[in-house]
Amino acid sequence: MANTVKVRVPGTTANCGPGFDAVGIACTIYNDLELTVSQEAGISLEVTGEGAGAIPADSSNVVVKAIQMVMDKTGQHYKGISLRMKNNIPLSRGLGSSAAAIVGGLVAANELTGNRLNKETILDMATAIEGHPDNVAPAIFGGITVSIMDSGHAHYLRFLPPVDFSMVAVIPEFNLSTRAARKVLPVSIPFADAVFNVSRSALLIGSLATGELKLLLHALEDRLHQPYREQLIPGMAQVLAAARQAGALGAALSGAGPCLLAFTTENSDEVGRAMTKAFEIHKVQAKYQVLKIDRQGAIII
Amino acid sequence: MANTVKVRVPGTTANCGPGFDAVGIACTIYNDLELTVSQEAGISLEVTGEGAGAIPADSSNVVVKAIQMVMDKTGQHYKGISLRMKNNIPLSRGLGSSAAAIVGGLVAANELTGNRLNKETILDMATAIEGHPDNVAPAIFGGITVSIMDSGHAHYLRFLPPVDFSMVAVIPEFNLSTRAARKVLPVSIPFADAVFNVSRSALLIGSLATGELKLLLHALEDRLHQPYREQLIPGMAQVLAAARQAGALGAALSGAGPCLLAFTTENSDEVGRAMTKAFEIHKVQAKYQVLKIDRQGAIII
Repeated sequence: MANTVKVRVPGTTANCGPGFDAVGIACTIYNDLELTVSQEAGISLEVTGEGAGAIPADSSNVVVKAIQMVMDKTGQHYKGISLRMKNNIPLSRGLGSSAAAIVGGLVAANELTGNRLNKETILDMATAIEGHPDNVAPAIFGGITVSIMDSGHAHYLRFLPPVDFSMVAVIPEFNLSTRAARKVLPVSIPFADAVFNVSRSALLIGSLATGELKLLLHALEDRLHQPYREQLIPGMAQVLAAARQAGALGAALSGAGPCLLAFTTENSDEVGRAMTKAFEIHKVQAKYQVLKIDRQGAIII
Repeated sequence: MANTVKVRVPGTTANCGPGFDAVGIACTIYNDLELTVSQEAGISLEVTGEGAGAIPADSSNVVVKAIQMVMDKTGQHYKGISLRMKNNIPLSRGLGSSAAAIVGGLVAANELTGNRLNKETILDMATAIEGHPDNVAPAIFGGITVSIMDSGHAHYLRFLPPVDFSMVAVIPEFNLSTRAARKVLPVSIPFADAVFNVSRSALLIGSLATGELKLLLHALEDRLHQPYREQLIPGMAQVLAAARQAGALGAALSGAGPCLLAFTTENSDEVGRAMTKAFEIHKVQAKYQVLKIDRQGAIII
């Protein structure tokens, strides 16, 4: 059996406005992970790109956790784990870097231990580590996913939209932990706000599945998490408004933020520039990237 | 201009589990409405079928209200309104009889006043009378609809599923006003319940739009209204469970109830019998009807 494998995992945007903890989209921004296992004890880590110098080289690393979980599950243990990561997905910005790390570790370790786990099992394992399935599902399957949890198991729908569009990801220079972004959420909400989000999340998936993208303007509206997280992201409302004014179909917080994401069918660069400019007014430096939907999810390369 | 028109309007099932006030499906059960206008003052009404003897022949009648709204909007007034209704949709059971009456009145009056209103305007007018767009949208457009309200305007997505299925509507002998069914709903709910419904309503529309019907088992789950309305419908939980046990893909309350609706691709009669039997145990007499999706919505016949 080979003792080295290389995996490519897409970044992901989750929530997409109203679809809190459920909706995710795989994006054409990737982390590459090379895993080498041996019986020589020790963990070594080499990171280039995003997170270089910031990722711990021990068992607190989620990639290592994921690899060890596969070894425990398959009963195949290696004492030595050597990782080489080439990261394009920015850390703690709401583009699924944590999900990509977990999925990368799981898929790589599964390949080196004889491919005993199917993708559904990998989804359950990734969800157990990440805490929710909305980023890990599209990182595994590609495309657009809707995930739910039922009795500890993740169930998902995966589809591709029938029309082409872009996603303009605007990435501020500061980062925001998902934990901090979850702390600001309320314990209970008005019934009317729940009804609001139920209708928008249904419309969001309907719009994406049928290609009726002009409905995204309303379908990206949210009352469940964005109003509470606005305090953590200076200028958020203005940046989202700038996206729409510059011609975006709609815009929303990406995952728990602070990245903001606009959906476009034209003028993507104009939208990106308008959004970064709106951030600048609030003294936030930001860059943008125009992304497409990744269709494959995690692959061995 | 003709002074008589005949309109056929489908019944509708709304909510469909998690999609409270948003999701609706037009069904192959119809009311026919014949409207004759004249300058001879007076309202006359002839009803056969469902609601015969129970529908008022004055301006409190929603059909009359709808007709007068069109006359007001178009500035074309007739003093005499003569209605002949042949109703198959049972009253106040959750199959959209009120929406069908309103849409029938609007479409018929629009036809007799020169077709000046487009379907979007009719949707807004119907929503104003009904209070919410989830039944009136599929009654107008047919198929499956997702509707939202924004600044007093209804916006909607309409689609047809790529696969065939049936809906087994189980209709108890007692009726339940939407007003009473709304009274039991809470003012605020746990954040987790809102998240639950957001994921299920996204999954519901995703399943129906892509044809991945096996996901309906989870996609029809609801924590927003069904748990609160259970007290109004004896045996509800057991009837829904009986549907699944008999092979239904999933089942839910139809609109505000008391009708319960199961989605099936086979054994529809078996499902219907199992559900009516489960109702009987709770001393509720019920009948069932196997319906399909109506694709046209309201039409002139």
